[in-house]
Amino acid sequence: MDASKESTMSLTEVRGEMVIGAGKVVGRHGQARAVDPALLTEIEPPFGQCGPDDVERACALAEAAFDSYRETTLAQRAAFLERIADEIMAIGPALIERAMQETGLPRARLEGERGRTCNQLRLFAQVVRAGRWLAATLDSALPDRTPPRADLRLRKIPLGPVAVFGASNFPLAFSVAGGDTASAFAAGCPVVVKAHAAHPGTSELVAKAVQRAVAACGLHEGVFSMLIGAGRTIGQMLVSDPRIGAVGFTGSRAGGMALVRTAAERPVPIPVYAEMSSINPVFMLPGALARSGPALAQGYVDSLTLGAGQFCTNPGLLIAIAGPDLDAFLAQAAAALNAKPAATMLTPGIHQAYAAGVEQLAQAAGVVTLAEGQSSSGGCAARAALYQVEAEIFLSDPTLEAELFGPASLIVRCRDLDDMRRVAQHVEGQLTATMHAAPSDHAYAAALLPVLERKAGRLVFNGFPTGVEVSHAMVHGGPFPSTSDSRSTSVGANAIERFLRPVCYQDVPEDLLPLALQAGNPLGIPRLIDGELHIAG
Amino acid sequence: MDASKESTMSLTEVRGEMVIGAGKVVGRHGQARAVDPALLTEIEPPFGQCGPDDVERACALAEAAFDSYRETTLAQRAAFLERIADEIMAIGPALIERAMQETGLPRARLEGERGRTCNQLRLFAQVVRAGRWLAATLDSALPDRTPPRADLRLRKIPLGPVAVFGASNFPLAFSVAGGDTASAFAAGCPVVVKAHAAHPGTSELVAKAVQRAVAACGLHEGVFSMLIGAGRTIGQMLVSDPRIGAVGFTGSRAGGMALVRTAAERPVPIPVYAEMSSINPVFMLPGALARSGPALAQGYVDSLTLGAGQFCTNPGLLIAIAGPDLDAFLAQAAAALNAKPAATMLTPGIHQAYAAGVEQLAQAAGVVTLAEGQSSSGGCAARAALYQVEAEIFLSDPTLEAELFGPASLIVRCRDLDDMRRVAQHVEGQLTATMHAAPSDHAYAAALLPVLERKAGRLVFNGFPTGVEVSHAMVHGGPFPSTSDSRSTSVGANAIERFLRPVCYQDVPEDLLPLALQAGNPLGIPRLIDGELHIAG
Repeated sequence: MDASKESTMSLTEVRGEMVIGAGKVVGRHGQARAVDPALLTEIEPPFGQCGPDDVERACALAEAAFDSYRETTLAQRAAFLERIADEIMAIGPALIERAMQETGLPRARLEGERGRTCNQLRLFAQVVRAGRWLAATLDSALPDRTPPRADLRLRKIPLGPVAVFGASNFPLAFSVAGGDTASAFAAGCPVVVKAHAAHPGTSELVAKAVQRAVAACGLHEGVFSMLIGAGRTIGQMLVSDPRIGAVGFTGSRAGGMALVRTAAERPVPIPVYAEMSSINPVFMLPGALARSGPALAQGYVDSLTLGAGQFCTNPGLLIAIAGPDLDAFLAQAAAALNAKPAATMLTPGIHQAYAAGVEQLAQAAGVVTLAEGQSSSGGCAARAALYQVEAEIFLSDPTLEAELFGPASLIVRCRDLDDMRRVAQHVEGQLTATMHAAPSDHAYAAALLPVLERKAGRLVFNGFPTGVEVSHAMVHGGPFPSTSDSRSTSVGANAIERFLRPVCYQDVPEDLLPLALQAGNPLGIPRLIDGELHIAG
Repeated sequence: MDASKESTMSLTEVRGEMVIGAGKVVGRHGQARAVDPALLTEIEPPFGQCGPDDVERACALAEAAFDSYRETTLAQRAAFLERIADEIMAIGPALIERAMQETGLPRARLEGERGRTCNQLRLFAQVVRAGRWLAATLDSALPDRTPPRADLRLRKIPLGPVAVFGASNFPLAFSVAGGDTASAFAAGCPVVVKAHAAHPGTSELVAKAVQRAVAACGLHEGVFSMLIGAGRTIGQMLVSDPRIGAVGFTGSRAGGMALVRTAAERPVPIPVYAEMSSINPVFMLPGALARSGPALAQGYVDSLTLGAGQFCTNPGLLIAIAGPDLDAFLAQAAAALNAKPAATMLTPGIHQAYAAGVEQLAQAAGVVTLAEGQSSSGGCAARAALYQVEAEIFLSDPTLEAELFGPASLIVRCRDLDDMRRVAQHVEGQLTATMHAAPSDHAYAAALLPVLERKAGRLVFNGFPTGVEVSHAMVHGGPFPSTSDSRSTSVGANAIERFLRPVCYQDVPEDLLPLALQAGNPLGIPRLIDGELHIAG
């Protein structure tokens, strides 16, 4: 085997290893293999599972790396983020193919997701370089005032090593080198990832890409580790470790709340950013329904079946007023849904939960099955489904509001606009809330908007909530239970804020001040000086 | 009585009333009087205590006021904050005199604190007008991109009605119209205050000033209420109310953690900003000790006895290396302390806790009493005290690290710089950490600084931690247990951030967009547009 082939193999071969600092480690606490959800067969190789010793070592390394990593220059840190993106691309098609096998997601989707993952890393490189996240603030000394004012300067510093829990539904963009990891690295935090058990091979390939980037950038090896281990014990141990300063999680409400509780019970509690559960209500206002019901029906069904409905922003609830326009909309939606093929879900567990959920929903009092997609007997294939219920019943039965992860949605039939508003006021906190509104609906939309603002992190007009842009203005967050902390977003530039806290430097001599706060603004970052914002200098 | 006299009386007379919306209410759940801590006598009049019905009404009003208050213009909200300051000043000397009687604090201190309280309100008026808190962010639509990008705009909105718990030690600046209330109002949140039981009369006078400001500015009456009731039940009820969206608290660790737990156990958890416990270590580096030990000794003793030591930033711990310079410093400090008169503490409860605390500290193994201030047999007068312990013992006995609220401090004697660093690494989270450093100490200070950055929210050089400036760069916050949320500050302009969360508006039509996000920047606020910061327009 020639050297270049060997080197390619080291990028692409899945060996069942974790990454702990500079080490490639086979866990010694049992074995597990990934499962192909389409074929329900196990995929080689076996992965050694981690134990307390591995958690201990990853956290000790992260702590050891923190002080040097948090004081890397903006250029160094940005180059590291970009290098991770380059290293992920360098893996090539092997990464996509392993992810396809482990998740059942199609090639185009995973190639798109890989692009999104790399763009996310590159966006955070820009965010780091721009330096707004430092929140540099200077208040001049006022020695002649009574009492005198000291020289006060503020910058933000990172919270400490961050524990990241990979999500099942985005094996690249919300997993090992996804949004939580990228934003934590951008903030200056070392990261310990607990990989999602459903895609360990994908996780290994990406973790080794990050490991190569750490080495290539000359950073302390402890900046990054990735652990593989099923069950909650390892996760709880990681969140309990005194060296961990914050937690990023995307997954179920039960899983997220378990971590929130563990973090709150620590001797020193830490923040947990858990993105959990959302049914993303879509309000169809009468004008929009009359004007473009059939087109909207197709858009709705496309959105709810996208990726087998396995998005946090899947439109699980649609609210509209009963009448001929809704009947026409529903007929069209039913036809569109009937044409949708069954789609493979991510894991047998998710598939079983979906099957149980639709069965329960179909049998709930007052719920009518409107349409079903095509069925399939193969593997984890799920059949899309559309249900309907009267607003009165929806408002009185809280179980109808539980997230049903998969390609199913519930139509809430209202008698009038008042019913619609009651539904808006009734629902729990959401990642998104959507209104379809024609110009004739704007007066009502203006009244509904403040209600929905209090319920959701993102308000979508005349679109569908799936598709979360990675940009400066994105908010992927929202009131409980959609997340555990509505003050933050887990997607977009502001995700960096989750891992920072302010520190004030009072009368600190120039030679001891951080660069961000020194005279002459050597970093060339925006600074607030005596209450005035200065873009440079 | 002529009309102007009657009107003055209505500003200055303490009647034993709460403020609930536009109402002046005498609680019907028992009575209590304030206690003069100097004389240990009760002060008239009795205050009717609130019950569940009062909490219910205050929260219902706050919720009813929220939507209109949160959409007041920047100018309206700023004018409201300024009007509160004017109304507080209009009360005149009666406010100071009532506060003196209820707290034992001297006139000059309370006049200064009133000034600080009003400056704080005025600072937040400026903060509101400047509009940076809105974090307005616009990402342009990219319709030709594959996939197309929607138009995305972000602003911050307030969390909802805020429950504020007045502190005992700042009856004006951290009580009814103090920093928590001012920053919550600035963010757009109605406020329900639970007054501190030690100064109900001061609280009533200030609450009625706020009530007048609400009326004068034409705001919904529910924007502000103030409840009076001792014990924890009412506080827990308030924090449990589903209409409350966040909590501000300054007080003891036990009290703060009780609220944190209550908030976490709600069906919808909410953030609690509890400023709790800090011993504010002061590190005396060898060069500074050699250069100006005696002057520093006086400054240290002045700082620790200021306001009977009843500051969150009181220097409760001083760390230095044993030797002749420290001996000279201690001799000077002891002399300065011996000259300090006994000072009246805020309440009999605080006084008793201090007396018990110093007794326990004096008897702890390895602790030596170095000096005591003058004693007094009167009322709640407390005697200052200085103790000493070897670093080795301090590091092995966690009880020596407990906050002792009052004019006492513990000197930790180190053998060398290494010992000093071990103490720095050992201490819990703090509001402040101080270094006294001569130029010859800078190399060591540079090594100690990253350790202290991780322990404290404010790093003070060559000064003392008491005296918390209200400005843009101030951080009055820090790692647990100094606060429950190190990501925030409770003093200074950034305190507004605690009560906000981001919302993204996707493809929202211009006529439905909030002003902050409309074309042409009608508010003239800084906005981040496609990743570039624009200061105006």
